[in-house]
Amino acid sequence: MINVHEIEKISMNCSMTEFVGTTVLDTIGLVIPGVDPMLLKQMNLKKPYRSLGLLSSRTGAAGQINAVDEAVKSTNTEIVSIELPRDTKGWGGHGNYIIIGGDNVSDVRRAVEIALEYTEKYAGELYISDAGHLEFTFSANADQALNLAFDAPIGKPFGFFCGSPAAIGMVMADLAVKSASVEIVKYMTPDRGTSHSNEVIVAVTGDASAVKNAVLTARDIGLQLLVSMGSYPKSPGKPFLE
Amino acid sequence: MINVHEIEKISMNCSMTEFVGTTVLDTIGLVIPGVDPMLLKQMNLKKPYRSLGLLSSRTGAAGQINAVDEAVKSTNTEIVSIELPRDTKGWGGHGNYIIIGGDNVSDVRRAVEIALEYTEKYAGELYISDAGHLEFTFSANADQALNLAFDAPIGKPFGFFCGSPAAIGMVMADLAVKSASVEIVKYMTPDRGTSHSNEVIVAVTGDASAVKNAVLTARDIGLQLLVSMGSYPKSPGKPFLE
Amino acid sequence: MINVHEIEKISMNCSMTEFVGTTVLDTIGLVIPGVDPMLLKQMNLKKPYRSLGLLSSRTGAAGQINAVDEAVKSTNTEIVSIELPRDTKGWGGHGNYIIIGGDNVSDVRRAVEIALEYTEKYAGELYISDAGHLEFTFSANADQALNLAFDAPIGKPFGFFCGSPAAIGMVMADLAVKSASVEIVKYMTPDRGTSHSNEVIVAVTGDASAVKNAVLTARDIGLQLLVSMGSYPKSPGKPFLE
Repeated sequence: MINVHEIEKISMNCSMTEFVGTTVLDTIGLVIPGVDPMLLKQMNLKKPYRSLGLLSSRTGAAGQINAVDEAVKSTNTEIVSIELPRDTKGWGGHGNYIIIGGDNVSDVRRAVEIALEYTEKYAGELYISDAGHLEFTFSANADQALNLAFDAPIGKPFGFFCGSPAAIGMVMADLAVKSASVEIVKYMTPDRGTSHSNEVIVAVTGDASAVKNAVLTARDIGLQLLVSMGSYPKSPGKPFLE
Repeated sequence: MINVHEIEKISMNCSMTEFVGTTVLDTIGLVIPGVDPMLLKQMNLKKPYRSLGLLSSRTGAAGQINAVDEAVKSTNTEIVSIELPRDTKGWGGHGNYIIIGGDNVSDVRRAVEIALEYTEKYAGELYISDAGHLEFTFSANADQALNLAFDAPIGKPFGFFCGSPAAIGMVMADLAVKSASVEIVKYMTPDRGTSHSNEVIVAVTGDASAVKNAVLTARDIGLQLLVSMGSYPKSPGKPFLE
Repeated sequence: MINVHEIEKISMNCSMTEFVGTTVLDTIGLVIPGVDPMLLKQMNLKKPYRSLGLLSSRTGAAGQINAVDEAVKSTNTEIVSIELPRDTKGWGGHGNYIIIGGDNVSDVRRAVEIALEYTEKYAGELYISDAGHLEFTFSANADQALNLAFDAPIGKPFGFFCGSPAAIGMVMADLAVKSASVEIVKYMTPDRGTSHSNEVIVAVTGDASAVKNAVLTARDIGLQLLVSMGSYPKSPGKPFLE
């Protein structure tokens, strides 16, 4: 048993079989090879997977959901649930808690590994300043996770833009949907669909080039408005949408 | 298009036509001259204004709502919606996201300008310490915004007191309503009417002098209790209620 | 009246009769000897106590609820309400706002004093790192407060484990309930039973030794996973469960 009076002797290289890895945005990836039946019953899942993969972050939602979308696409797993706690470590948005299910633990572990890799990449389109934050994501081919979280049509291009304080998200959305022939699939505000976050979120579908243009327009607008508040945002990763 | 690898080249003097201004408490004021029809449909407004004014802050609720109340009173605009995200940048309260509607963009822009000016003033009655915060507001003549957010009777005096951690708000409220002949119009707690904020909020109406006395009593009590927690609060503005 | 331009002249030794004390985790204890009748009506209590005791913290839930459980057990008072604001000063969990009722103010004041003392002790099983937090509590004999908040069977042993980011709480729970013959009485997630906190919470009952073993297992697992995220947690008190 761990001596709680000597916590600093615990290794940061976790050797538990449940541990998969960690990445940016206080994200941890874990697996449960065979969930305890009593706990499984409490979870009340639609389909009672025994092997579960977990991805969980203090900050970020769309990037990690897109990452899990990729993970599920390329493994024999399914999305079980996506929850968006009100978090972001003092900022105005969400963290995430995503469960992946599968018939065997190696599939689920592989899915969590892929999700962690993509989370690092997709974190590049999150921008955080002293005043607020912006988040963008794009998928050429949305799958289960983006569908469950944001009503993305499966197999279609998907774009997401989010701004905080909320008014920035609203103006971004207005100019983005005017800039390209896209269709709105989700509209979220502090009182609608969020966990009372200080954000306006709009998600769109359409032709890939139109969707991407809408996202890039939203990013241009959002960055200008966020900077107008008096501080420059940083990205926890490397911006990559061009 | 903005080069996201050189964000610090973006000017802090925003030149977008949608930009109105910024002020204390991470507040931004924006206008949308003519909202995109598809986005307008998603918003599901009771009255489909095309010109929208937006006021949005990371911190503060009553002060900005009172500011918007003044703005709507003196312009040809109306309140569309008031949302209170759980925010305050790591503290226990709300931010705000307020939409004003009008028939033309110059009315709406003027309303947002007025709201920004009054936000700076009303921020003087917000007090933030390491331990918690207090917020007060007073109006001699409540209008649409205070009515929508806090059931203030229109045309009547209105007083508001809020304390965090919640127990401070409760004791403030008890002593304030005992100190003056006022009527409670709103009572909010972490599970009632708030976005799970750590506050007790009470709003009152009555004769102007009684309402103001109740607010001043609440402030006296709140400051003593907040200071008892071991740190002194600061105001982001200049206290002005006397 | 207090001069708001000289706030730093207010004494930190509060002399108000309503003041009981403060302790760790930005916790304040207060009493209201006889609540204002108009305010009491707004509160809509099941049983209209006139004397109320209040315990309220920015951070922590299970520890303070267990502390109040002890307080109510040993005084002539009852639990009126327990609310869990989304707080923790920028971390992913809850604060608390607890009301105790009694027929006379000395009973209620004594209950709040006891709750403050136990809060300091029970805070020892809260662990907060840069990445997240863990909270544990154990009672050999649960009473009203643990019953109201977490469905603890009255008079039975009770164990509680909570981890943030949420995935840590889930793996802790799975291994803890597998490690000992306990029964789950409460299962909470960001979208279930919490105020959108970034936590998985599981509460259990059973034989005292089994319940304690489950809590200790959860703590062992939780500490290893939290440390894997790259920083060491600290406790605001002294760990004491052994």
